[in-house]
Amino acid sequence: METHILLITCKDYKGLISKISTVIFENDLNILVMKEFVEEETNTFFMRSELSGELNRDKLYLALEAKLPAGARIEINPKQKKDIVLLVTKEHHCLSDLLSRHHFGELHARIHCVIGNHEVLKDYTERFDIPFYYISHEDKTKEQFEDELSEAILLHNPDYIVLAKFMRILSPSFVARFENKIINIHHSFLPAFIGANPYRQAYQRGVKLIGATAHIVNNDLDEGPILVQKVMPVDHSFTARNMVQAGHEVEVAVLAEAMKLVLDDRVFVTGNKTIVFV
Amino acid sequence: METHILLITCKDYKGLISKISTVIFENDLNILVMKEFVEEETNTFFMRSELSGELNRDKLYLALEAKLPAGARIEINPKQKKDIVLLVTKEHHCLSDLLSRHHFGELHARIHCVIGNHEVLKDYTERFDIPFYYISHEDKTKEQFEDELSEAILLHNPDYIVLAKFMRILSPSFVARFENKIINIHHSFLPAFIGANPYRQAYQRGVKLIGATAHIVNNDLDEGPILVQKVMPVDHSFTARNMVQAGHEVEVAVLAEAMKLVLDDRVFVTGNKTIVFV
Amino acid sequence: METHILLITCKDYKGLISKISTVIFENDLNILVMKEFVEEETNTFFMRSELSGELNRDKLYLALEAKLPAGARIEINPKQKKDIVLLVTKEHHCLSDLLSRHHFGELHARIHCVIGNHEVLKDYTERFDIPFYYISHEDKTKEQFEDELSEAILLHNPDYIVLAKFMRILSPSFVARFENKIINIHHSFLPAFIGANPYRQAYQRGVKLIGATAHIVNNDLDEGPILVQKVMPVDHSFTARNMVQAGHEVEVAVLAEAMKLVLDDRVFVTGNKTIVFV
Amino acid sequence: METHILLITCKDYKGLISKISTVIFENDLNILVMKEFVEEETNTFFMRSELSGELNRDKLYLALEAKLPAGARIEINPKQKKDIVLLVTKEHHCLSDLLSRHHFGELHARIHCVIGNHEVLKDYTERFDIPFYYISHEDKTKEQFEDELSEAILLHNPDYIVLAKFMRILSPSFVARFENKIINIHHSFLPAFIGANPYRQAYQRGVKLIGATAHIVNNDLDEGPILVQKVMPVDHSFTARNMVQAGHEVEVAVLAEAMKLVLDDRVFVTGNKTIVFV
Repeated sequence: METHILLITCKDYKGLISKISTVIFENDLNILVMKEFVEEETNTFFMRSELSGELNRDKLYLALEAKLPAGARIEINPKQKKDIVLLVTKEHHCLSDLLSRHHFGELHARIHCVIGNHEVLKDYTERFDIPFYYISHEDKTKEQFEDELSEAILLHNPDYIVLAKFMRILSPSFVARFENKIINIHHSFLPAFIGANPYRQAYQRGVKLIGATAHIVNNDLDEGPILVQKVMPVDHSFTARNMVQAGHEVEVAVLAEAMKLVLDDRVFVTGNKTIVFV
Repeated sequence: METHILLITCKDYKGLISKISTVIFENDLNILVMKEFVEEETNTFFMRSELSGELNRDKLYLALEAKLPAGARIEINPKQKKDIVLLVTKEHHCLSDLLSRHHFGELHARIHCVIGNHEVLKDYTERFDIPFYYISHEDKTKEQFEDELSEAILLHNPDYIVLAKFMRILSPSFVARFENKIINIHHSFLPAFIGANPYRQAYQRGVKLIGATAHIVNNDLDEGPILVQKVMPVDHSFTARNMVQAGHEVEVAVLAEAMKLVLDDRVFVTGNKTIVFV
Repeated sequence: METHILLITCKDYKGLISKISTVIFENDLNILVMKEFVEEETNTFFMRSELSGELNRDKLYLALEAKLPAGARIEINPKQKKDIVLLVTKEHHCLSDLLSRHHFGELHARIHCVIGNHEVLKDYTERFDIPFYYISHEDKTKEQFEDELSEAILLHNPDYIVLAKFMRILSPSFVARFENKIINIHHSFLPAFIGANPYRQAYQRGVKLIGATAHIVNNDLDEGPILVQKVMPVDHSFTARNMVQAGHEVEVAVLAEAMKLVLDDRVFVTGNKTIVFV
Repeated sequence: METHILLITCKDYKGLISKISTVIFENDLNILVMKEFVEEETNTFFMRSELSGELNRDKLYLALEAKLPAGARIEINPKQKKDIVLLVTKEHHCLSDLLSRHHFGELHARIHCVIGNHEVLKDYTERFDIPFYYISHEDKTKEQFEDELSEAILLHNPDYIVLAKFMRILSPSFVARFENKIINIHHSFLPAFIGANPYRQAYQRGVKLIGATAHIVNNDLDEGPILVQKVMPVDHSFTARNMVQAGHEVEVAVLAEAMKLVLDDRVFVTGNKTIVFV
């Protein structure tokens, strides 16, 4: 029996869960899981539900639409693998982890290809039978570079573009082409140490924890909605270089967890925040 | 506007959430939070919901009962402080923490009294204007001792009896008098190191983490449904005595979190496990 | 047999440990623990050692001084309780924790008094037989207020002044009077959310972890050398107010751990960082 | 300049650090790091030091031996990659992680080969240009199987044999051939859930944390000296199968950290415990 994921965002009002669950029942579907949240500041209702049974997508959609307030956003997705493209530069740790999970069928996605602005990860990627495209940023304007990237990405029409340690800052116009579809891993506990060389900044500040943040990319550098954050302890014996190495472990774990959340349709974006139904 | 907590346990079937939420809507109540879980092995549905609005308890109860399958268990509690009694021996750390939270109104409970089988914590307890009763176990049979305890406890008719480092093993007959109402903190990561001197056992085994477990007490020593577990790192430099001291921090944190869960009606017991809606 | 703590800071050079340990041996002392660290950037050697045996302080000092490079800093402290003064405003959680540890002899310090710029914690403090001095900041210039504070503090000649949620910003001239002796708990994971209302800032940024930082106070607000940092997970369901409450648990744990470190002479300050020998 | 690691185990007595550090100084070596620990119960001194300078191994050894008490154990190892062999069955997660770190030069070891008692990980291993040997246990006595294993392992004369989810129990006679050289990852927080199916055991007990333990293998199943332990939170919504999947993340992290410790000569074994100088 197939499972579908139902995502609803709308204004909240009394009786909403009753209305939604009754529509689901009348469509002869079983609720496996149902989670909801009301954002009080905006009086907005968010719901994620997993449904089993023979689902007629259009029928369910229309029935829900008829009961929900104007402006409601309804998504009904079969619970299946999504399509993703990875962007990398030179660091391998996040790429390695995602390729290995993918190889053994444990990433809920199909990795269509890896695109690098350097060529160093080509050999490694191809060992996993995944195509690697080398698109250098050198001798190009940012616009040219990003147009080439866009073109390569759009061939695959991915659900998500994963910046698995892609070390180029993307322009607002590039980001706008893929709204809420670009996932980044930033190597600090945001909003601490925005920008370049966060581990050096952390070292200089003498922090006792270092961290990593997976977030959705929007127009402001390192400012998009946060998906996952983790930290690990450090002490005075860590050089900035030790912090970089140690931090890799956190980065890998944070990106892997963030990917699981977005690939399972567990994330809503509201303003500059996320609502995550685990 | 008052808030109530609705707790339902019943056999699961298709349409259940629709039925329940429709009853709630028809009673003109608003669902603030609703969490549910289906235990597949037993096909049992568990739900916790917070409701706002003018609630007529009997009316809502009967309306739900009419819709739910036979054998359903329905609880409707106003969201208010519960009544508790603490049992202690000589160690103060869990007691101190609960008394201080209580003093500042941050424990969602009224501590009616503290009962000790030693007298050493009497002075400290009374500094917080909480009565302390000294009931020694010496020169008494276990039965006599437990009868005195029971009597003292029953005067206060508490919702929960908290063993805040109470170092006497309670008999099955005592436990049976207060089914699912006795909360214990055990100073190990259960099921490792059941029984006496868990820190000494941990020291001898050379573990790299020590922990604590808050659980509901049932007839088997250290075997009841687990509420909360936490651990902390240790290394070779910890003596058994150091582990005891360090472990206090974990014990305090674990018991405080467990109390929050039970006092907010977030815990269901199913067999020897808990379902906890956080 | 008495234990002493030996702290050395000096330029590093080959044979230093040999020289120091030979002096210790020649003074007929036993090394219980010895930890050292060389800060490569400044070629500075830091050492903390615990020594047992009949120690003649002046003799050991002179013998070490004779062997160490010019400018070496040598401290020899008996392992005993230090003297501290607490400054508070209205929040009780850090105060409660320290008072309770102190009451049971588990804080390696004597709390001489608590000074509050509000009076609300007076009753609570006095329950523990600790004097409370109310020094209001109202209708006073910052200078007047800080002079009164200084005077009250200096009466006790404390080793450390602990800002246990003291919500007034101290001027550089006040801080200069107590160099490296003021310990603060800041309710964020510094350097994120410097300044006022860090939990509101954290809420607005949508972070997935909140934290606290214990640090030594220097002239720049929230910028002193960091002692201890911890975090805890939060999610979209936390309001700013929930974050404040949850954060209290982390603040208490962070301050308690920081106090343990400074009271046991485990902390060296170097520039804007700490070296901590745990 | 080369770095060497000096490891000493001997009876403790007053002046020992002075003697050792003076020998080091007289050999014109610089102490980069020096950590020591005295196990009080057995009055045993353990020391790990990193030394830079032109080191004459035999000369240093003899000079130390002359100063240390009879029975002292002295090891002087150049800081270089060790040789290891991996044993696997069907699960890939620990293998993937070690192969990827090895490929990028981040594992402080040379993986000579992977030996599997099933063939399923052969293709994956060979993608990394590492030889895979398939040694089935089927239709063989345990003795025959282990003799074949031994023979294959001994060809490579490894420093460590890593059971990267090798699901056969090794006999005491096999283990005795490789004393303190076999590293295992057990998928529970030992000593909880010794033996088969620890996640099922954890599920049935209703624990709120699951864990993994890396340890050195000795004759008793799951009873050897513990190197590293970590845990992660679970709740009632985890099936035993979910716990297996989630647990993989912890297993990978625990084994990777344990490998770092043993490959950097940071581990002493004393009785059934480890002393780990991080």
